[in-house]
Amino acid sequence: MSKNECMASRSLDQHAAAARELLACLGRDRAVETIALSASRIAAAPDAYRHRTLAHDVVSPGDLPPFDNSQMDGYAVRAAELSGATPDATVQLRVDTQVNAGDAISAIRPGSAVPIMTGAPLPTGADAVVPIERVIPDRFLSVGGSDAGSDPVTVEFTATPAPEDFVRRRGSDVRAGNLLLAAGTALGPAQLGVIAATGLTKIDVLRRIRVLLIATGHEIREPGTALEPGQIYDANSAVLSQALIDAGCTVMAWPCSSDDATDLLHIVEKGSPTADLVITVGGVSAGAREVVRDALGPLGVEFSHVAMQPGGPQGLGLVEAAGHSDGIPVVTFPGNPVSALVSFEIFVRPILRRLAGFARPERETLRLPLAERVESPAGKHQVRRASIDPDGRVRLVGGPSSHLLHSYAASTALVHFPVGLSHADVGDLVDVWRIDD
Amino acid sequence: MSKNECMASRSLDQHAAAARELLACLGRDRAVETIALSASRIAAAPDAYRHRTLAHDVVSPGDLPPFDNSQMDGYAVRAAELSGATPDATVQLRVDTQVNAGDAISAIRPGSAVPIMTGAPLPTGADAVVPIERVIPDRFLSVGGSDAGSDPVTVEFTATPAPEDFVRRRGSDVRAGNLLLAAGTALGPAQLGVIAATGLTKIDVLRRIRVLLIATGHEIREPGTALEPGQIYDANSAVLSQALIDAGCTVMAWPCSSDDATDLLHIVEKGSPTADLVITVGGVSAGAREVVRDALGPLGVEFSHVAMQPGGPQGLGLVEAAGHSDGIPVVTFPGNPVSALVSFEIFVRPILRRLAGFARPERETLRLPLAERVESPAGKHQVRRASIDPDGRVRLVGGPSSHLLHSYAASTALVHFPVGLSHADVGDLVDVWRIDD
Repeated sequence: MSKNECMASRSLDQHAAAARELLACLGRDRAVETIALSASRIAAAPDAYRHRTLAHDVVSPGDLPPFDNSQMDGYAVRAAELSGATPDATVQLRVDTQVNAGDAISAIRPGSAVPIMTGAPLPTGADAVVPIERVIPDRFLSVGGSDAGSDPVTVEFTATPAPEDFVRRRGSDVRAGNLLLAAGTALGPAQLGVIAATGLTKIDVLRRIRVLLIATGHEIREPGTALEPGQIYDANSAVLSQALIDAGCTVMAWPCSSDDATDLLHIVEKGSPTADLVITVGGVSAGAREVVRDALGPLGVEFSHVAMQPGGPQGLGLVEAAGHSDGIPVVTFPGNPVSALVSFEIFVRPILRRLAGFARPERETLRLPLAERVESPAGKHQVRRASIDPDGRVRLVGGPSSHLLHSYAASTALVHFPVGLSHADVGDLVDVWRIDD
Repeated sequence: MSKNECMASRSLDQHAAAARELLACLGRDRAVETIALSASRIAAAPDAYRHRTLAHDVVSPGDLPPFDNSQMDGYAVRAAELSGATPDATVQLRVDTQVNAGDAISAIRPGSAVPIMTGAPLPTGADAVVPIERVIPDRFLSVGGSDAGSDPVTVEFTATPAPEDFVRRRGSDVRAGNLLLAAGTALGPAQLGVIAATGLTKIDVLRRIRVLLIATGHEIREPGTALEPGQIYDANSAVLSQALIDAGCTVMAWPCSSDDATDLLHIVEKGSPTADLVITVGGVSAGAREVVRDALGPLGVEFSHVAMQPGGPQGLGLVEAAGHSDGIPVVTFPGNPVSALVSFEIFVRPILRRLAGFARPERETLRLPLAERVESPAGKHQVRRASIDPDGRVRLVGGPSSHLLHSYAASTALVHFPVGLSHADVGDLVDVWRIDD
């Protein structure tokens, strides 16, 4: 019997469900790490806060805003003192000392109006702010300066403000002791900002999922080294490292160009203690010597043939490993770069993105018309690389073969041709994922 | 005359057009930097390749794949030697030495079939591969080993392959000297992978746009320090640093809590030589002492009142600076965090994202029904924070006031109420931007 025949056959959906089941463990008992928060650290470590989610509820240590303050440049007043003011019967108040943003909290004196700047503390006793453009004169007067022709300097009000007009009360955004941000919140600009606004400088976030990525193949060599005939440069480590990072993970990329199972096992053993997930690439097809199957099959990884193209040979399993009482999850992709990246897109990316807190972990599926007739193997779910014409029609880029990474790099979309479809005609609507984000 | 009256009034669209015109200079003569490309560097510097675009066309230094190879595990043959093979009249060939991926290129001998693994070099003279599952027996035989009961070992073929079956020809993905990736290509997993596949280890990319971010305010203090009454923590530096980084920029965040124009000018002078753009926050309203207006107005920044809420007071200009023969562009936002972030979203984010190579620099505008009645100032374009109910209706989060950063942080959407609209009813369709990506 060939190894191919030994493998269970599965639909794409069945394998996707099995992958979700295996990787459900990644969401349990997530490790927590404390990271420092400051604008200078954001600038210096631009990756520090991206795709991070809060490990715990964050309670506000103080009121926001921390004191009553003015929403406008104008005059702080006691609203009652301007009762009855109209354009024809203005009310005059004496101009008191100006309060700027950053000044200490003062008190308003009866019969006076306090020039107040946006964000400046509302004087004790004042209950409204009248914007400068509604006051006569509509510019700020300097008490004791060139405007001090008459003594005391006064301003005229032409209307009665309502109490609370243009006043921002202490705690009106959030109160001390209330929930600032809930556990699981993904951190973006506004979330980081509101944490900073409370003065907090440390936050507990979920540790990123750490992936041990092992590209295999006796033929692969690191870019920059010399190739012998029959050898190729390792593209998979670059492809999947970036794809994993974009999905919010930390990556250890340790390629294995030995076809000796013990060498691969050594990498797994060495990397597992500091990894949450092992992804291998290559070594899973029907060949005489398949390093991933040879090494990990005996340890419990189950290999299946999934009815898809590219990406047929797939493997999943929990493997005993130091530091992992229940074993470490292992996902094995086939070795062609197109197969590996399509496999990642379908089986792993949505899971990792959900764990990283992305609001939309799945690719959005568009229904677009085909610009050309396409043949598809009826027994397999085929995924082709494509671009979208200006008129919204989808056009394939390159052939179906899984070695065409250059075509993949020239594509902006993946097109799905499900099982049961042997061809699709020009104008037929197909499921399309945009991948150019 | 108040400072407010001095300011030109503009519509949101007019100011957006002025910002695009000012910032067009950022796209000209972009600086180029060479970055090293390797999987280990991707893993170690996860931000290194994100939002990078190629500065020049990249030409492939070699053929991809670099040699003819097998697409399947099976037998390499000369197709003509299997002419006439059927299940009833099989053709036998002698099994020659197996070729694995990574082996050197061999030659096929007449009358023989070469066991060949996926990715292994096609022997010279062979022109087709027959997958193992189509051969009798459908497993690989070990020549000279336990299968060597008869001498020589043979396999039977039940069909005639077409020449080129399951053969990947050298250069079939891309040929040496052809365009690998065009200047301006945004680098993602597939693009980095195909560069690695050619063996290239250095790429020329456009330097990120470098932003000098100056949050101003006499009242602002760095989180983690002690506050006096009347002071607040600086949220803007964190908010805009992360927003700028997410838009593909490099940030220098140098807050200025002095209200002395010379202190602000000193920061501009110090930071400009290594910046492409200055963004200030705060100090632009109608107050008696507005540090940004006081410092930058005399240098050519023009302040306008934009008919929007939040975000009314805005400024744009080119300021003379060392290292910038045409001046450095300066964009000034108002100081409330909500105003600053909404201003960034509308006037600057799409421009920076386009420069960073994002395929979709603009927020996608959804048309969603309101879950509640909303009042809006008819003379202004109002932007409110909101969330989207499970039924797809949009619900406001918090009030219109621009100090409500906590509400912003709890939102997943911005809702636009254009000029001319004084209210919108339950079920009315409104323009919505999702901001939870």
